[in-house]
Amino acid sequence: MGLVVQKYGGSSVADAEGIKRVAKRIVEAKKNGHQVVVVVSAMGDTTDELIDLAEQVSPIPSGREFDMLLTAGERISMALLAMAIKNLGHEAQSFTGSQAGVITDSVHNKARIIDVTPGRIRESIDAGNIAIVAGFQGVSQDKKDITTLGRGGSDTTAVALAAALEAEVCEIYTDVDGVFTADPRVVKKARKIDWISFEDMLELASSGSKVLLHRCVEYARRYNIPIHVRSSFSGLRGTWVSNEPQGEQPMEQAIISGVAHDTSEAKITVVGVPDKPGEAAAIFRTISDSELNIDMVVQNVSAASTGLTDISFTLPKTDGHKAMEALTKARPTIGFDSLRYDDQIAKISLVGAGMRTNPGVTATFFEALSNAGVNIELISTSEIRISVVTRADDVKEAVRAVHSAFGLDSDSVEAVVYGGTGR
Amino acid sequence: MGLVVQKYGGSSVADAEGIKRVAKRIVEAKKNGHQVVVVVSAMGDTTDELIDLAEQVSPIPSGREFDMLLTAGERISMALLAMAIKNLGHEAQSFTGSQAGVITDSVHNKARIIDVTPGRIRESIDAGNIAIVAGFQGVSQDKKDITTLGRGGSDTTAVALAAALEAEVCEIYTDVDGVFTADPRVVKKARKIDWISFEDMLELASSGSKVLLHRCVEYARRYNIPIHVRSSFSGLRGTWVSNEPQGEQPMEQAIISGVAHDTSEAKITVVGVPDKPGEAAAIFRTISDSELNIDMVVQNVSAASTGLTDISFTLPKTDGHKAMEALTKARPTIGFDSLRYDDQIAKISLVGAGMRTNPGVTATFFEALSNAGVNIELISTSEIRISVVTRADDVKEAVRAVHSAFGLDSDSVEAVVYGGTGR
Repeated sequence: MGLVVQKYGGSSVADAEGIKRVAKRIVEAKKNGHQVVVVVSAMGDTTDELIDLAEQVSPIPSGREFDMLLTAGERISMALLAMAIKNLGHEAQSFTGSQAGVITDSVHNKARIIDVTPGRIRESIDAGNIAIVAGFQGVSQDKKDITTLGRGGSDTTAVALAAALEAEVCEIYTDVDGVFTADPRVVKKARKIDWISFEDMLELASSGSKVLLHRCVEYARRYNIPIHVRSSFSGLRGTWVSNEPQGEQPMEQAIISGVAHDTSEAKITVVGVPDKPGEAAAIFRTISDSELNIDMVVQNVSAASTGLTDISFTLPKTDGHKAMEALTKARPTIGFDSLRYDDQIAKISLVGAGMRTNPGVTATFFEALSNAGVNIELISTSEIRISVVTRADDVKEAVRAVHSAFGLDSDSVEAVVYGGTGR
Repeated sequence: MGLVVQKYGGSSVADAEGIKRVAKRIVEAKKNGHQVVVVVSAMGDTTDELIDLAEQVSPIPSGREFDMLLTAGERISMALLAMAIKNLGHEAQSFTGSQAGVITDSVHNKARIIDVTPGRIRESIDAGNIAIVAGFQGVSQDKKDITTLGRGGSDTTAVALAAALEAEVCEIYTDVDGVFTADPRVVKKARKIDWISFEDMLELASSGSKVLLHRCVEYARRYNIPIHVRSSFSGLRGTWVSNEPQGEQPMEQAIISGVAHDTSEAKITVVGVPDKPGEAAAIFRTISDSELNIDMVVQNVSAASTGLTDISFTLPKTDGHKAMEALTKARPTIGFDSLRYDDQIAKISLVGAGMRTNPGVTATFFEALSNAGVNIELISTSEIRISVVTRADDVKEAVRAVHSAFGLDSDSVEAVVYGGTGR
């Protein structure tokens, strides 16, 4: 019985009852002989309430102070959780990110972990305590200022601590039963995945699956820390994410892991670009100079008659305005006809390492969409993923059709709640 | 123009509006050419809400975790205050007690400051920033755990920082205009005191005046830091507490500084104590072994016929039950007849260094009470204070009578709000 890192999200510790329930589960792991380190997020709506207060005093809050403010959230939840555990007769100590040795760079609101020096945590668990660590936060290496890790930060804290402490597993407790073959809110017959490789999980995460964030899975893959995503409301096995199949039910890797969708992106089309070297580069240099991230990029064959081509790309809707502005400004230099902006799109992705050796996958995918009457606007593929852009209105239809076509539908409809705070 | 430490209590920063108002006042001091260090308490009811949460998860919260929890309160207010100042175009940085170098012992919930090493604060203000420091909190010297300073802790933080930074003055902003000659809720004609010596302020504080706590005044006296108690709602001069009269209106020290009252104590009478050496010692050893603090102690002359005497003492009501239990248990050993417990009492104290050389003060005091028909149950005096215990019902009558008798009544009724979070 080794060391286990458990992470509980904000919805699992939303109120005193939730905290007491989580405390019981933690104590169980301890009773089973594990050393236990727990990473916890802020309670339910705390973060939103703090953001609301910040907006009341300042329209553009300073990064340093915003981080100082937000980290109060985990301070509350971790202290309460430690109290609840002690109330069950077990020893517990809470630690801030700084006390736990989570060292980051100085980029406030989205700091990256540089190093983890968990000396105090090791000391605490070796003395028989359960250690409770604030997720989402760290301390900057140079200035010793409090930082936060941005969206999904608590998951990253958990995986980083698991790596530094050489834990057996990092358990991510959430309000769903695991990772599903599709979003269960859209596909009623979506199945819980028992095991998925890091590689496929990375593709799902970057294709719109919100259970685990890309960054956290990447960290786990680099340090080879198995992640077990499971519900804090049930005792069921969830989804293992690792290099090799794990747990009581080892399985062959499926050809297809799942179908993800994403409606948070917009599409920009640059119309009438001269088809000559350097044009695409000029366009994407303009975008990257504005510090915007783009996702899919597609260029069609140019029409022979005009020597002009169109370049389309997708990016987060929230960056759409900024990108249009930058491109409009650069138009005289780059030389294109016009810009088209479209935020009524959806991206549907099929992910699975098995498609490498199964040439029929692409055909089946397109047939399924076509049979469902869904029009495809853009296509982009990697070795283990196919993504298409469709109308936003078609997204549910499209996901269900693809899910069915690849035999992913379960026999029964599973009852799941889907959500989470994203912290 | 030197360095000023300003402290704002929870009622001054109860909401976003309050924070913005306080930010303006801080910026004014900065514009006037001062280096400014601000100590801030938790917003309004935050502390009570956190205590309520703690009680929901654990009936007896651990001291270490309770401190971790409560310190979230100042983290929120200080970050918001720094944001609000930056929004006014001035640079501000917030610091936790630990970052500000407030080093304490390890007694959780009521830690004492051992040392202040404000290197980061000095650096921040020398770089032109306004430094915002969390009141009420520190870090323990040996274990590096987060501690809190207990009731009135933020005032103590402010005075300790003022001493370590060699500030010109420590301004304590509150929701009253200063220290009054009596509680204005009881005596409508109470006057604001322009200047009071450390010595008299210490006696007032230990006699029930709640504007400044004993501990904070003691600290200020030891390091000779002038305190200016004033309202955060007005720009008026408040009360200066210092060795020598200060400010634009230096004054002679009055014979009497003020009248304080306290209804938070109970009286225990040990009846029928054998009048022989060692009996009183045995009683008070019993009390101190239970870690209870007592206030007034009075022993009457014993009745010659019985050789028995009564010993009475007062102590906080909250400790009453524990003291009665300890004494009851010790009765067989000590040997007394019975115990009487009375929590319907009030203590009225007259404070003023001038009474040392004015022999008539005591007589005037007792005459005033007698004329008001107030019965005296216990009397205790120091060189600059007379305290009596009366029925709780008589307290207002008694305070008003004494206030009047010593010519403390002002000509006009001052409009004041009286309250405060005591943190």
